[in-house]
Amino acid sequence: MNYKRILHTLGIVLCFEGALMIAPLICAVIYKEPEVLDFFECILICLGFGGLLLLLKTRNKNLYSKDGFVIVALSWIVMSVFGSLPFVFSGSIPNFIDAFFETASGFTTTGASIISNIEILPKSILFWRSFTHWIGGMGVLVFLVALLPLSGGSNLYLMKAESTGPSVSKLVPKVKSSAKILYGIYIGLSVILLILLLAGGMNFFDAITHTFGTAGTGGFGVKNSSVAGYSSYHQIVITVFMVLFGIDFSVYYLMLLGKFKLMLQSDEVKAYIGIILISTIIICINCVNMFENVWVSLRHSAFQVSSIMTTTGFSTDNFDKWPELSKGILVLLMFIGACAGSTGGGIKVSRILIYLKSIGKEIAIAAHPKLTKKIKMSGRTIEHETVRNVNVFMAAYLVVFVVSVLFISLDNLDFTTNFTAVAATLNNIGPGLAKVGPTENFSVYSNFSTLVLTFDMLIGRLEVFPMLVLFSPYTWKK
Amino acid sequence: MNYKRILHTLGIVLCFEGALMIAPLICAVIYKEPEVLDFFECILICLGFGGLLLLLKTRNKNLYSKDGFVIVALSWIVMSVFGSLPFVFSGSIPNFIDAFFETASGFTTTGASIISNIEILPKSILFWRSFTHWIGGMGVLVFLVALLPLSGGSNLYLMKAESTGPSVSKLVPKVKSSAKILYGIYIGLSVILLILLLAGGMNFFDAITHTFGTAGTGGFGVKNSSVAGYSSYHQIVITVFMVLFGIDFSVYYLMLLGKFKLMLQSDEVKAYIGIILISTIIICINCVNMFENVWVSLRHSAFQVSSIMTTTGFSTDNFDKWPELSKGILVLLMFIGACAGSTGGGIKVSRILIYLKSIGKEIAIAAHPKLTKKIKMSGRTIEHETVRNVNVFMAAYLVVFVVSVLFISLDNLDFTTNFTAVAATLNNIGPGLAKVGPTENFSVYSNFSTLVLTFDMLIGRLEVFPMLVLFSPYTWKK
Repeated sequence: MNYKRILHTLGIVLCFEGALMIAPLICAVIYKEPEVLDFFECILICLGFGGLLLLLKTRNKNLYSKDGFVIVALSWIVMSVFGSLPFVFSGSIPNFIDAFFETASGFTTTGASIISNIEILPKSILFWRSFTHWIGGMGVLVFLVALLPLSGGSNLYLMKAESTGPSVSKLVPKVKSSAKILYGIYIGLSVILLILLLAGGMNFFDAITHTFGTAGTGGFGVKNSSVAGYSSYHQIVITVFMVLFGIDFSVYYLMLLGKFKLMLQSDEVKAYIGIILISTIIICINCVNMFENVWVSLRHSAFQVSSIMTTTGFSTDNFDKWPELSKGILVLLMFIGACAGSTGGGIKVSRILIYLKSIGKEIAIAAHPKLTKKIKMSGRTIEHETVRNVNVFMAAYLVVFVVSVLFISLDNLDFTTNFTAVAATLNNIGPGLAKVGPTENFSVYSNFSTLVLTFDMLIGRLEVFPMLVLFSPYTWKK
Repeated sequence: MNYKRILHTLGIVLCFEGALMIAPLICAVIYKEPEVLDFFECILICLGFGGLLLLLKTRNKNLYSKDGFVIVALSWIVMSVFGSLPFVFSGSIPNFIDAFFETASGFTTTGASIISNIEILPKSILFWRSFTHWIGGMGVLVFLVALLPLSGGSNLYLMKAESTGPSVSKLVPKVKSSAKILYGIYIGLSVILLILLLAGGMNFFDAITHTFGTAGTGGFGVKNSSVAGYSSYHQIVITVFMVLFGIDFSVYYLMLLGKFKLMLQSDEVKAYIGIILISTIIICINCVNMFENVWVSLRHSAFQVSSIMTTTGFSTDNFDKWPELSKGILVLLMFIGACAGSTGGGIKVSRILIYLKSIGKEIAIAAHPKLTKKIKMSGRTIEHETVRNVNVFMAAYLVVFVVSVLFISLDNLDFTTNFTAVAATLNNIGPGLAKVGPTENFSVYSNFSTLVLTFDMLIGRLEVFPMLVLFSPYTWKK
């Protein structure tokens, strides 16, 4: 382990976080809120601690695979801890554990909240809360890799540990350039969304916070009723952009390069769109009696399916009251999640596809033992290594899921609440069902359970392994 | 596909089932019940259809792997269809789909019932209902392999498809002898249990039916209150024997051979006992306020943990009223299930162990990429083939689980009911929680859902693949 290098990188992350807090500080200045001082203090603290860590210098710049995992895991914990200070200092969330939950929920783009009434919060605090989504969406270390002169070989380990999906997709041979392209696309799409929301008559504050929430597939809004109060135009725009931000960003890169044929070849994106369409149609039919007409039902179904499948978590209706089949499909979509290489969470469509294809292969072999069959995706053969990786991911994911449900069962809430609370946090969705449904919040849980769910969000965002490596005794053995 | 040979084997199975119905016929004669005639008719029908199929003769005796899967899958469906006739003819369960569910529940040793008041049923019907557990426990084709002069090579395929666990454990090189030894141990243990129940003052009818229910890890009783009405002595005896029947039978074979050292080496059995002990202690503490004293709590916890873990499904208390943590642990145990090579269902402890060990291996490799680490069980290296098999089993199992929950959600019952209904049938337990809890029954579901759950029981008992192969288009392609 290269301890000094790890701590040094954490110092960079903290200074970066301090710099990011300038945005809500400006917001507080504009709205003349007393939180100016709180944000100023927080910035000083971040820069102070970060600066101290930067003093640790090491000539040994080598990072190994496990250092990459440890740096990413620790960075996300540290960011969430320091990012929760504005909530605590401003008195918006006095309990530190609750504030830690809310901040981790922001950075991991979960959007689960412990706040019962968000409309009474200062604008600068709401801005920071939504801004964390946007920062966390594409990844902090990916951003730093894009900007900073970190030494070559180690960049890949950092991106590997922070990116989503079963295999790292470097767009171009250089990691640094890949990171720049990803952020370019991210910023570009966000700006288009912001303009479209403004064009529909949304005020700037609401538009920018909803852009953050949509782009990061986060789900924090600024109204207690989430997106239900906005016009159909805004709901439809957000629906479309949730879907867009759930697509593998390399598809947009191919589009920019004019490689439309290659772009349309992605099995993952086809499956992703297919699942969204089929689920929307089933839910629309299943819920048609709950709304004025089939079009309203379609709008709500499409919004909710896109919101859950991309793990955003916005809502336009209390889907906890929908029929069981619709709720069941939504819970299933929570687990499937978005495409690899997007800002969305969940297991990811590509993993699910590989998983299903490996069953198909096995049945074919059971029927015809002499068959040689390879798993293919988008025309390319999937390597054995990737299949194994998917299987181990699913196993570790299941174990984390089960253990979490048991832990939070100590609070003695009902099974549906506990099951969907873990599903909604581990998959970075936001709302679950029953007592953590879209009109409820996570304040029903004890401090202990809140901590468990906070770690579930972090484990889910980093796709299990970085956190497991961090807490594994193997890592710390010489 | 060797169609003639497959149909011929089904004929043998049907004739065998007809022969087995002589037992409840005798029971009806003894208790002077009018069901004598019903059973007589059923026997004639089984022998008639079976005899017709036996007329199909083929010189080609070769069976391939897929023929084995298809024979086993079809045998279990056919047995459940014909086995449900006594329920329909006697009027005990007039609806055929319900009777099919009840019979499949018997043969698959699930013990889930659609009957609200079992105490009004004729004794001969109750006897048949419990007897199906005992027949299904060790497997019908295993029994036929032990008895009949089926041709050599194909026996292994049949045992492979019907036995439980990730790899077939032949006790001795000859399949036929292995089957005989397994049935010998099964009968021996059952007789000891019967004697112990009788020694405690239970009447013969109750003792034999509870022996069937315990030995097959089934769970059908003869009282509406399951085992709650019997003395603590009987409850403790049943607790111990449920645990014994959940152990890999090859352990008893090693014991009979005097190889005690080898016997104690099984990682699976150690984990199985460990999980039972730890779960019992946690639940005992969690529930201590619900009972007079800690010993009563311990008795109920030990009984319920053993009942669920071995997938028997008897109960001594309405555990649906227990605290959420206890219920959560019980639901988890439903999935883990008993040891491979026992009469129990569920995923099986050995699969869970291999699954967990593969995560451990991956974390170790993530931390130290140059590490070469092999997964070991009971001192032996687990082959890559077996690990892959476990992974694919888990994948297929999950898919069946999810699809079933969605299908039965159409009935619009709550999520806890639907989730545990599938958990309790796919894992061959019996009772679930909420509307399918231990004091409730499965009559709340529509015919369609009842059929889905019936197939879940069959899929679970045969460990997914035979049924998938049967319904896969690959199998029927030339």
